[in-house]
Formats: sequence, structure tokens, C-alpha cells
Amino acid sequence: MTQNHQTQNQDGIWTVMLKDGYGNCNNLNSDPNAFHLSDSLIPQQRQRSPFDEFECPHFSRKLELFPKWHLPLRIALILNILTFIYTFIRDVIYPFLAANKNEFYRIPVLLMNKALPVCALTLLALVYLPGIFAASFQLHRGTKYMNFPKWLNRWMLMRKQLGLLSFFTAALHALYSLCYPMRRSYRYKLLNWAYQQVKQNKDNAWIKDDVWRMEIYVSLGIVGLAILALLAVASVPSVSYSLNWTEFQFIQSKMGLTALLLCTAHALVYAWNKWAEPKLFVWYTPPSFVLAVLLPAFVLLGKVVLLLPCISRKLQRIRRGWEEKVTLETMNSEAANL
Amino acid sequence: MTQNHQTQNQDGIWTVMLKDGYGNCNNLNSDPNAFHLSDSLIPQQRQRSPFDEFECPHFSRKLELFPKWHLPLRIALILNILTFIYTFIRDVIYPFLAANKNEFYRIPVLLMNKALPVCALTLLALVYLPGIFAASFQLHRGTKYMNFPKWLNRWMLMRKQLGLLSFFTAALHALYSLCYPMRRSYRYKLLNWAYQQVKQNKDNAWIKDDVWRMEIYVSLGIVGLAILALLAVASVPSVSYSLNWTEFQFIQSKMGLTALLLCTAHALVYAWNKWAEPKLFVWYTPPSFVLAVLLPAFVLLGKVVLLLPCISRKLQRIRRGWEEKVTLETMNSEAANL
Amino acid sequence: MTQNHQTQNQDGIWTVMLKDGYGNCNNLNSDPNAFHLSDSLIPQQRQRSPFDEFECPHFSRKLELFPKWHLPLRIALILNILTFIYTFIRDVIYPFLAANKNEFYRIPVLLMNKALPVCALTLLALVYLPGIFAASFQLHRGTKYMNFPKWLNRWMLMRKQLGLLSFFTAALHALYSLCYPMRRSYRYKLLNWAYQQVKQNKDNAWIKDDVWRMEIYVSLGIVGLAILALLAVASVPSVSYSLNWTEFQFIQSKMGLTALLLCTAHALVYAWNKWAEPKLFVWYTPPSFVLAVLLPAFVLLGKVVLLLPCISRKLQRIRRGWEEKVTLETMNSEAANL
Repeated sequence: MTQNHQTQNQDGIWTVMLKDGYGNCNNLNSDPNAFHLSDSLIPQQRQRSPFDEFECPHFSRKLELFPKWHLPLRIALILNILTFIYTFIRDVIYPFLAANKNEFYRIPVLLMNKALPVCALTLLALVYLPGIFAASFQLHRGTKYMNFPKWLNRWMLMRKQLGLLSFFTAALHALYSLCYPMRRSYRYKLLNWAYQQVKQNKDNAWIKDDVWRMEIYVSLGIVGLAILALLAVASVPSVSYSLNWTEFQFIQSKMGLTALLLCTAHALVYAWNKWAEPKLFVWYTPPSFVLAVLLPAFVLLGKVVLLLPCISRKLQRIRRGWEEKVTLETMNSEAANL
Repeated sequence: MTQNHQTQNQDGIWTVMLKDGYGNCNNLNSDPNAFHLSDSLIPQQRQRSPFDEFECPHFSRKLELFPKWHLPLRIALILNILTFIYTFIRDVIYPFLAANKNEFYRIPVLLMNKALPVCALTLLALVYLPGIFAASFQLHRGTKYMNFPKWLNRWMLMRKQLGLLSFFTAALHALYSLCYPMRRSYRYKLLNWAYQQVKQNKDNAWIKDDVWRMEIYVSLGIVGLAILALLAVASVPSVSYSLNWTEFQFIQSKMGLTALLLCTAHALVYAWNKWAEPKLFVWYTPPSFVLAVLLPAFVLLGKVVLLLPCISRKLQRIRRGWEEKVTLETMNSEAANL
Repeated sequence: MTQNHQTQNQDGIWTVMLKDGYGNCNNLNSDPNAFHLSDSLIPQQRQRSPFDEFECPHFSRKLELFPKWHLPLRIALILNILTFIYTFIRDVIYPFLAANKNEFYRIPVLLMNKALPVCALTLLALVYLPGIFAASFQLHRGTKYMNFPKWLNRWMLMRKQLGLLSFFTAALHALYSLCYPMRRSYRYKLLNWAYQQVKQNKDNAWIKDDVWRMEIYVSLGIVGLAILALLAVASVPSVSYSLNWTEFQFIQSKMGLTALLLCTAHALVYAWNKWAEPKLFVWYTPPSFVLAVLLPAFVLLGKVVLLLPCISRKLQRIRRGWEEKVTLETMNSEAANL
């Protein structure tokens, strides 16, 4: 029901009929237990249902492959690639041109791990941004009995996918970060630092500020990731069906926003006092943590504004069905504009 | 059915009716696909069902938020906080007062990671403790045709939640531990150690005992966590429904106890020979691993006692329906005492 | 339905009937919510259904315990143990005999972590090997309307289990690897290296080749593991039911092969240029990465061959129902041979 309804919104009734056709094909031909982790070549299965090529013609198959994931995946990929190129220019090309330093070894791990967190945090912010737009629309119109513009509807239906992709990239970021001290580059750097310390006769390397920064940064990151993991688990169909409405609301709204807050704090603590360090503003570009923090900060600010008593009270009244006295004409003209 | 039945045990029939009411509300108003990782502001959904405020009145909503998780969560939180304060006093306050050493940097990672494992291990022991009590009751009464006391019933219904929380804290403990060498504090300590080694002209830092301790400790911890992860996966509704009774028994009982054994061994190996080191008994308090090991050791001992041939044979007979000849009066008076 | 059908293939109708009996027992006696993470001693539950010992007699219970997992688990265990012994001889016994060096501390972590990746990669290759055999059979026979030999059928039904075990061992391998820098042995080695560097007055420890090797190796491993994790999630029943046939195909075939490719590359990069280093060929035995790479390389080569235009075109025609003109006798004689 749900899926059909959503598809109806997106692609019209014709696709829905086709989809139903698929559902049937699917039930007849596929044996999920046998297909898991299997192969494109499952002739055994095919033998049992030689009519599948007929019922599921080729042209329509393309429609089926994760239709809800296309746009979120594209957004995640573009975010990743753009940040990757951005940090590549700043961290590899710049030292190469400016100081003739070969830092290309940074590409496989360090650069990947600069693109991933920016992507994860931005995706998570994109999950909670449409909620702010929706509330603004309702506040502006003074009623809830009006449809949202199409793009907002589509965006709101995409939030699950955006959130899961955010968790996925965040988990990758965690794995990459945990690998840091395992790498040879870290080992050699450490040995060189030890050598220099001895040569400089410095008996204590301890930098208090840096220690605190890292401890808080790590701790916030872990707790943020753990909460995101809970959100992801709650998105597994059988788990989400066992939750009631209030529980789902609580997990996806309260816990999700807490995760966003913690992860933004994680990025801010990572930045620490480097916001104003001129040497980090290579070629007048801001470091990547500035980019990572922008959208989440906007979302969190928006949430705070919506929680202000005067605004939240009006919003609650609207959601209970209360309507501001607006002439029908205003509403119509507005609807026409969208 | 199942859930209702359990609720009936806990809150009486009235709640069950209310619950059913909720189930309906839930089915009508919520579209799980759309709600995943979403927002408290889902006006779109609300528009479709403007009667939800009426059918699910506010006062009852609070009852619904993870009723089975309240007590386990509270236990986990209290355990965490108490251990945190305990280790804070021992590891931060004591060196500050006794040696004027500033160790406050330990709070975000190192102290957290002392509270988490104690909590994880204790929670896991709490999963298997009621089973021992239940067996003792049956052995003492000589029959299985008598209800357990209420607290034991409630506890036994809480085991899933306790186990999942144990896995969650254990996974956090693993993440925190894996972060150790990534932190600046570790790096600076390492550099200082290297400096001192050079100054002391010590060509080999190797401490055989310490190496073995750590290797075994790490290995046991990983295997224990992996088994707990399997238990957690088997608790996902759709996975658990695909298991039959024997499989479920095997996973939750045999594998769970193996995990408890491994994790206790993990804690004991961590302790190694430090049980009697006087300098660890700060202000006459035992180190946190002693606290962590107490309850699991008791549970494992209890399991061993129940496996003794004379006892296990009697228990099996009782569970097959055999009854000790006891006068009805004794049983009644006992039941009245509980 | 599905499960019964598969069992029918394996054990005949009698088992199926028994299975159905079990299904009933299961529904009557087990309350999944109460059993999760529970105990072998669930007398409470038993009281409610005192007839379970009767309906599910003891002798049949053994049949039930993960019947589909027996063979895959045995394969994984044997692979693990064999590789463990192999590396034990090469990495511990050899230095002990040849140089009188005590390397026994390697057993709990380093040796475990040599057995695990070999096992993980071989299991993953075993998932995709039967697909190649199936395609070869079809090409050779020139038809799809003929049953595969029994062993191939059985193997193909085992792929899900093999894949999940591969992911499990790969995840363990990742955890073990991440623990490396945390261990005392690594710390002491690092301190000794630092000491030697100072003594040798070597101001730069950097080895460019080694750095690149490790960075690429780590990055490939993480991405490979992430894809395997997606495959594992797609094997959770409720997730797999929400996928349609094309999506399932895509995940298990395309993404799985990508994971196999990445993990093989991960092993090859780890090997780097050590293929021809004579000192690694202890007692004329090849290092473990050679063993790890053999089967996956064969599978990937087979896939490439099947993708050659002339072969893939014929295969596609066969799968659409086209048949080579072969006399019935040939087919029959062939079938008799199997």
C-alpha cells in the first residue's frame, strides 16, 4: 500500500500497475533463501520459471533498481567527490606547488577521510532540513490543510535514505579514523618525531590543549555514531514494525537531532581554535570542517528558533487543526506560484 | 498476541485494551517508510489523519515510550554513573590530592571506558542470574507447577533488553579502546617514553608478561564481542522468527554463557597479577576490574553448581513434570510468604 | 514453503513432515520476546506448555540445530584451523628452530589474524565459484532444461551461509587489525625502533613504498568490508523481503563480485612485491597471502572469461530457452554419468 502510494506521487498510476506486475513476478520466481549472496547466474531458479523473461520484460527492469535511492545516492556521491577534489587541491596540490612537497600518499586514506565526514554531516543535516521548511510553510500559511510543494514532499520521502547514507558514511569515517595509527605513514612520522624530540632534548612532548581537543573529539564522535547506529537499526523493517508511533517519533526526531548536535559538536571540537589560523586558509579557501559545519549549524539554529515559545505555540495550534483567518484567494494565488 | 500477553502480566487488562487502540492508531496514521529517520514535524502525514489527536489522547502517550526498556535502561545508567564516579575519585581526584597531578584529561575517554566495560559485564551477568534463581526455586520447591515470585517473573521478561544493552555498552567499550592509540595523549606519552628510553640507554623495552597479558586480553575481548554481536543479531525480530526453538535456546543459552565466560576471562586477564598490588588499592578501594568480575563470577559459579550431576539430574526430572512429595500446606504457606 | 522445498531436496519428505511438526511446537511453546538472550532454564515458559517434551521428542532435536549451517561452518572451521597451523609453523616454529627466537606471543592476535583473512577470502570465493560451474555446465550441454548435479545444487543452496560466514570472519579480521597499535607488543617494538633510529642517527624513517602499500591496502580493505556489510544487511530476512528480484540480483551478484575484487586487490596490495622475496618462502612454503589469493583469482578469471562476448552471448541465448541441437542420447548418457 505504502509503496504504491508513494510511487503514485512520483510516477503516476501507470508505473504502479507495472510495479504490481513486478510484485507478482517476484513472488513466483525468486526464492530469497536461495538467492542471498548469490550470483547473476542462477539457472537452476530460472528453469523453474521459464516464463519470467516474458512477464518481466527488459525495458522495465531498469525502473526497479532502488528507485528511492537514486537521488540520495547521487547527492552523497556528488558531496563526496566535490569535497574530495576540494581537499585534494588544498592538501596535496598546494604543498606540491608551494613547497614542492610530495604528499600524494594522502590520497587513499587521509583525503578519503576528509570527504567522508563532510558528506556524513551534510547528509544528516539534509534529513532534518525539510522539517524546518515544512514548519515554516505551515507558520507562514497559518494552516495545515494545504499541500506542501512537490519538491518538499519528495524531499521528506527521501529522509530515510539520506539518514541511512549518512550513517554509512559516518561508519566508514570511523573505520578510516581507527586505521590511522595502524598505517606505516603514522609509524614513520612517530619515529621521526621521537628522533627530533631526542635531538632537541625536549623531555616532555605533552601539549595540554591538543590532548583535551582530541579526547573530547573522540568521545563525542563515538557517542554520535552510536546514536546513529541505533537510528539505523530502527530502520530495519522488522524492527520498525515492532515500534509504535511515539517510539518511532522519539527515535527519529529526538535521538536523530541529538546525533546531529553531537556530530556538529564533534566537528567543532575538531576545529577547536583553528578557525582563525591563517595558514589553514590555503588559497583563501576555508578548511573542510568549516564546510562540514555550515548546514548542520543552520539546521540546529532553525530548530532552536522553532522551539521559541511564541513560535512553537502557534505551530502546535496549527497542527491541532487551528487556522489563521486568511482569505481563500491568498491561498490559491500562493498555491499557483509553487 | 505475545506482547499483549506480557502486558497483561504487568499492567492488567485495561492497558491491553489501550494498547490495542494504539495499534490501530499506529496502523492508520503512520507510514513507516516515510517516518524513518524523520522529524517531529511531519505535517504531511498528519493532514491525512486529522483525528489522531482524538484517538490517541495525550495522557496515554507517555505510557507507550519503550515500556519494557525503562527499568533496564535505568539499571544501565545507574551502573554507568556509579562506576564513573568511582573511577573518577580513584583515577583523577586521588592523584590530584595525593600527588598534585592533573589527570583531568582522562575524563572524556579513559574514564568513560572504565565505566562502560563494568556496566557491560554486569548487565550480561544480570541476564543469566535469574535463570539460577529460577532453578534454585524449582529445586527447593521440588516442583515446576508453581509460579515464580513476581520480581523474578519481571526480571526474566527483562533479559532481552538487558542483553541488548550489554552488547551496546560492550560495543562502545570496543570503540573507545580502539581509539586509544589514535589520541594525542597516547602519542605524547609514547614520544616521552621513547625519549626516556634513549636517555636511560635501555636498548629493549620489551616486558614479556605485559605483552602476553595484552595479546590474550585483546583476543578474548574480540571473540566475546563477536559472540555478543551474533546474539544481538538473533534478537532482530525477523531473524528470531526464522529460528526454531532449539536454535533459539542454543544461541541465547549456550552462546550467551560462552560470551559471559569469555568476557569474564577478558576482565581477569586484564587484571592479570594486579589483584594484590597495593598501589592499585587507592584509599582501600578495589580497582574497577574487581567490581566488574564479582557478579559474573558468581553467575558462572552458580551455573557450574547447577551442572553437577546430582543437582542437574534432579532439576531435569522436575522439569519433566516429576514432583517431590510435599504436603500441600507447605506449598501454600510458602506461596503466602512471597 | 521455500524452506520445506529445500529440505525436500535434501532429506526427503519424511523430514519435511517432521519439520512441520516442529513449526507447530515452535509456535505453541516459544514466546520469542521472552526468549531473547535468555537462558537454558526457562521453567516459566515450560510450565505453560508441559506437553513439549512429548510433542518434540529428543531424538529429532538434533536434526534441527541450524541444518543449513553445518557444512559451511565446518568448511570455515577447517580453513581457519589449517591456515592457523600453517602460519604457526612458518611464523613461530621456524624462527624458534632456525634462530632460537621466541615468537610465541604471536599466537593470540597475529596468528589468528593470519588465519581469518585467508578464511574470509576463500569463503567469499566459494560463494561465486558454483556460479561459474553452473554456467560451464550450461555452455557444455547447450541447454538450461537439465538439472545440475546434486553437489552443485547443494553448493548453490549454501551460498548465503558461506557469504555470511565470510563477512563474519572479515569483520573479525578488521577488529584484530585495528587492535594492532593498541597492543603492548606494538608499543615496545615502536620504542625499540625509536631507540635504534636515534642510535643510528637516522633522521628520517620514511619508506615511500611501504607507506603507499599500507595506505592503499587499508583503504581497499575498508571499502571491501563496507560492501560485504551491505550484503550481510541485505540478508536479514525483513530487508531481503523488501527488495525486489532485480535489486536482490544486483546486490548479491554485482556488489558481491565487486567486494571479491576489492578484497583480492587488498590481499595483492598487502603482498606488494614480496611475491619473490626468498626469505618469505620459509621451508619452501609460500606465504599465507599466496594461499589467500589463489581461489579468488581463479573465480575472477572465470567471471572475466564468461564475460567475453562470444561466450556471454551464447550463455544468454541458452538462458532464454535456446537449445543446441544435441541428440537425446547424448544428454541421457551424460546425465547417467553424473
